[in-house]
Amino acid sequence: MANGSTDLDPATRADLVDVARQLADVARPETLRHFRSAALAVDDKGDGRFDPVTEADRAAERAMREVLAARRPDDGILGEEFGRTEGTSGIDWILDPIDGTRGYMSGTPTWGVLIAAATGGRPVLGIIDQPFIGERFLGGLGHAECTGPQGAAPLRCRAARPLAEATLFTTFPEVGTPDERRGFEAVARQARLVRYGMDCYAYALVAAGQVDLVIEAGLAPYDIAGPLAVVEAAGGIVTDWQGGDASGGGRVIAAANREVHAEALALLSGMS
Amino acid sequence: MANGSTDLDPATRADLVDVARQLADVARPETLRHFRSAALAVDDKGDGRFDPVTEADRAAERAMREVLAARRPDDGILGEEFGRTEGTSGIDWILDPIDGTRGYMSGTPTWGVLIAAATGGRPVLGIIDQPFIGERFLGGLGHAECTGPQGAAPLRCRAARPLAEATLFTTFPEVGTPDERRGFEAVARQARLVRYGMDCYAYALVAAGQVDLVIEAGLAPYDIAGPLAVVEAAGGIVTDWQGGDASGGGRVIAAANREVHAEALALLSGMS
Repeated sequence: MANGSTDLDPATRADLVDVARQLADVARPETLRHFRSAALAVDDKGDGRFDPVTEADRAAERAMREVLAARRPDDGILGEEFGRTEGTSGIDWILDPIDGTRGYMSGTPTWGVLIAAATGGRPVLGIIDQPFIGERFLGGLGHAECTGPQGAAPLRCRAARPLAEATLFTTFPEVGTPDERRGFEAVARQARLVRYGMDCYAYALVAAGQVDLVIEAGLAPYDIAGPLAVVEAAGGIVTDWQGGDASGGGRVIAAANREVHAEALALLSGMS
Repeated sequence: MANGSTDLDPATRADLVDVARQLADVARPETLRHFRSAALAVDDKGDGRFDPVTEADRAAERAMREVLAARRPDDGILGEEFGRTEGTSGIDWILDPIDGTRGYMSGTPTWGVLIAAATGGRPVLGIIDQPFIGERFLGGLGHAECTGPQGAAPLRCRAARPLAEATLFTTFPEVGTPDERRGFEAVARQARLVRYGMDCYAYALVAAGQVDLVIEAGLAPYDIAGPLAVVEAAGGIVTDWQGGDASGGGRVIAAANREVHAEALALLSGMS
C-alpha cells in the first residue's frame, strides 16, 4: 500500500507522534467538560439529517488547532468543525474532535476524538481517543499501542478465521442508501455475530484484536483517517468497498486480516 | 407501584445496599480477568441462537454467590448461570454476572454486571456495574447514585419532552419477533434519535438523565431486575408493553418520565 511515511526523517516521525499525543491530551478536557451535562446546547447543522454540533466539538478542535499553530505551523489541517487550513510542509493533520456526536449527546462511552497525520494524502499516523474511559489507541510510524484502564498493551489485529466465525460491526443498521444496506446485509448474513452502535470505537476493537470487520458508508475523510492509520498499524486492512483507497471516506471496510477482507469484499463488491 | 421495600427495617435496608456493593466489587475482577483476552473460551449454549457462556460469567456468579452464602444465607438467589436457590427470608437476589455477553466477547465497554434485591418478587434495589470503565449505577432503598470516571453524582431521569424530541435505545435492531419489531419501529419512527447496541448500559443512561426511552423484547427476569430498580429510583418508569409489571422480563419499556412513557406505550400497545 502506498505509504509516504518512509519519506519522513526520524526526528520528524518522533515529533509527529508526540504532537498527536498532545492533541489528544488537549481535546480530552474540552470534550469531557460538556459530556453528560444537562446544559449541553445542541445545534442542528440544518442539512436535512439530524446532525448536532456541540460546543464541545468546537472547543476541542480549537484547542487542537492552537497546539498545531504553536508546534507545527507549516502543516496543513482538515478539521470537521473549522474546515481546511493549507500548509507547506507536505504533512496534513485530519481532526474529528468528536466522532459519534449522537452517541456523545446520549451519554454513551463509544464516541471518540480522531486525529491523523497524513503525507501525500495518505494517513500515516492515527489516534482514536475515548476521553471518558481514558483509553487511547495509537498506530503508525512504528507504533501500535493502546493505553487505558487495563494499562498499556500492543495493538494487533486477530488472525484469520472464516467469515462464518467472524464478528462484524457497523454504527447504524440503516448503513447509508438502500443499495449500501443490501451490501452490508449480504456480509451480515454470513457473519457469526453482528453488532451496532459503537461509532469509531468499532475500529479500535479491530485494531485491538477483538473484532474482525467494520463496514460503513457515507463517511467523511475525517471519520476514517485516524481509524485507518490505527487499524493498518495493527496489521489490518482498510479499503473502500471495491478494495481501493478509503482515505477519502464514503463506503469503507476495515478488516482484521487479508483473508476476511477478501471474503467480505467479494460480497460487497457484487452488490454495488 | 407495588413496593415491598417499606417492609424492611433500616438495618436490613443498609445491609442490602452494603451487600449489593460487595457483590459488584467481587464480580469486577472476575469479569475483567478474561475481558479482551485472546484465550477467552466461548461455549454455545446450544438453544439455536448464538448465546455464548464464558468462564467469566460463571466465575463472577460464583464469587457473588459466595458473598451471599456468607452474608445473606437465608436469602434466595436467581442467577443466570446457576439457576435458582430457594431462600426463607423473603428477600431474593437476582444476578446476571455479564449482561451483554456478545458485547463482552467483542471487547465493547457497554456490557455490565446486573444485581438486584427483590421482596415479594419485586426488585427494590439494583446495580448496573461496568467494570472496565469502573462505573457503577445504584438505585433503590433511598439511593440513586452513579460513581465513575467523573466522580460521584446523583441519578435523576430527564424531564418530559415530546417523543419527537426524544432519544430511544434498543440493543438489537431486530428486537424480537416481527410483531415486536413493528412495535419498536412504530415508536422509533416518532423519536428524534434512535441508537443501538448499548446492552444494559442503555438503562443506566435513562437513569442518568441522558436518554428518554429503552425498548426491548425477549428479556429474561435477570436482564431487567437490576435496571428496573435503578431506573425507578431515578424517577423513571419500567413496564411491559401493556403498562404492566416488567420484572418477569419479556417485552420491556423503560422511560424517563410518565409523559414519554404514555406516548410510547400508546404506539406499542396498539401493535401487539
